[in-house]
Amino acid sequence: MDIIYFFELLGTFVFAISGMASAAEKKFDIFGGAIIGWATAVGGGTIRDVMIGRLPVGWMRDTNFLFAILAALPVVYFFRKTILRFPRTFLWFDSLGIGLFTVLGLERTLALGLDPAVAVVMGAVSATFGGVLRDLLCNEIPLLFQPKTELYVTVCLLGGLFYLFLGLFGLDYRWKMIITILVVFSLRQLAVSYQWRLPTIK
Amino acid sequence: MDIIYFFELLGTFVFAISGMASAAEKKFDIFGGAIIGWATAVGGGTIRDVMIGRLPVGWMRDTNFLFAILAALPVVYFFRKTILRFPRTFLWFDSLGIGLFTVLGLERTLALGLDPAVAVVMGAVSATFGGVLRDLLCNEIPLLFQPKTELYVTVCLLGGLFYLFLGLFGLDYRWKMIITILVVFSLRQLAVSYQWRLPTIK
Amino acid sequence: MDIIYFFELLGTFVFAISGMASAAEKKFDIFGGAIIGWATAVGGGTIRDVMIGRLPVGWMRDTNFLFAILAALPVVYFFRKTILRFPRTFLWFDSLGIGLFTVLGLERTLALGLDPAVAVVMGAVSATFGGVLRDLLCNEIPLLFQPKTELYVTVCLLGGLFYLFLGLFGLDYRWKMIITILVVFSLRQLAVSYQWRLPTIK
Repeated sequence: MDIIYFFELLGTFVFAISGMASAAEKKFDIFGGAIIGWATAVGGGTIRDVMIGRLPVGWMRDTNFLFAILAALPVVYFFRKTILRFPRTFLWFDSLGIGLFTVLGLERTLALGLDPAVAVVMGAVSATFGGVLRDLLCNEIPLLFQPKTELYVTVCLLGGLFYLFLGLFGLDYRWKMIITILVVFSLRQLAVSYQWRLPTIK
Repeated sequence: MDIIYFFELLGTFVFAISGMASAAEKKFDIFGGAIIGWATAVGGGTIRDVMIGRLPVGWMRDTNFLFAILAALPVVYFFRKTILRFPRTFLWFDSLGIGLFTVLGLERTLALGLDPAVAVVMGAVSATFGGVLRDLLCNEIPLLFQPKTELYVTVCLLGGLFYLFLGLFGLDYRWKMIITILVVFSLRQLAVSYQWRLPTIK
Repeated sequence: MDIIYFFELLGTFVFAISGMASAAEKKFDIFGGAIIGWATAVGGGTIRDVMIGRLPVGWMRDTNFLFAILAALPVVYFFRKTILRFPRTFLWFDSLGIGLFTVLGLERTLALGLDPAVAVVMGAVSATFGGVLRDLLCNEIPLLFQPKTELYVTVCLLGGLFYLFLGLFGLDYRWKMIITILVVFSLRQLAVSYQWRLPTIK
């Protein structure tokens, strides 16, 4: 199996868990949880595909994404407390996920001939708007916008710019992808460790 | 007039009333109510059409849907109290509506050559996401996700699976449709009567 | 530069400021503010384009729109208090903006061969749903639906109908546009001055 495809399924699975965990905190029922997990996992890519006109949207073309989300349901149902005991591990997966989705979102936007500046924005949208959708459906102020959140969109935007920058060196796209994911991952980990935050508008 | 088409207009009308009644509880003004009614009535189908790439979305191709929604406005304005006195009747119409929209959403997804598993999901989305949109626009936690709600999405998903199952017997699509709508209707009525609920994730 | 194009960029800039000012009240960080500004500025047109199938959506085809939004960020960051001291001026720009976006949204819907009734609805959606998105992302009840808001959607719907009415006289589309924008502008100013409001559903 292609390594990128494997990571994409893994990212979907991890994002679904993050959505279902939020739903559990709100005491939603299990199908409510499944819907929130689904929206969190495929929401960013769906919003991107809808806006750039790549239809039907990505997850519909390959049922493995639905199964990755379904697989998250029993995991959250039976092991939620265990997961919550390892927030650090969860953060690792989430950081890998946003790195991967940033690059994939950017590539899919460029593939349609759109401007690189638009592609950087859509990379960040792909990576982060699943989480925005999760918070909206749970009737919360999106975590993303709250000043207490360490650099998140910023990291995705920087990752997107870095990926474009790597393009100057004629690297294979697979190398560019892996390097960018590592950069996004490291920046996000550093941001959380050192509590890097943006100033609020005031 | 085609019976399916008649039911589709009726379902739109009933969903518009449900949206406007929510808007009235929030004391929105009449155009605010009209917008919520419109979003509730065509929201599920619109989200489906946008995601599967059936554009322009369905209600735009036939102004009768707009008129069905407009017709709901005076009904809610003048007879809201009367409607609230017959919640049972309202539930009947709503149950018919979700049955119909489940089957239509599923058929329209299959018609684009998408996987039956995706079609079952999109059938449930068509039937229920108008209500999710209604609750989001009213700044409420979607009723759908709340554990106090009796089986709702579940009934639509089961209805979708049942419809696919009927496909094994070479029935005419009209018969499959009517039988499935009756099954969804009955399941939903039973769920409300006996307060069937799903467990919460915890 | 085309005058319509200039006004479209100006409208985008003003709507971005309105979104960022809301984000500032919620104490979002600067990228949170940029996202809310972006959603407010291009949200209405994006929802319209997605629903009518004009993809990729408008702002992606011309990076000047992204730059107009970015340009609003330092303005809000450094001059927010000054802006808040001139609400009247801000209202002027907003009224011009909804007039322009109503007409553009209507024209783009008609251009796809859709029904004039649908086009009037989509004109109002283009003009007002950026603000709805802003309020949803800030977890507020959309201002648009609140009875305290003076005629807003109503003004856009009337403007749309008036624009269609002007079509009977064989005027050049540029004249129709300018007259309609002035009508929407004046109606909205009058609505605010005399506190014209719609009755609530009750």
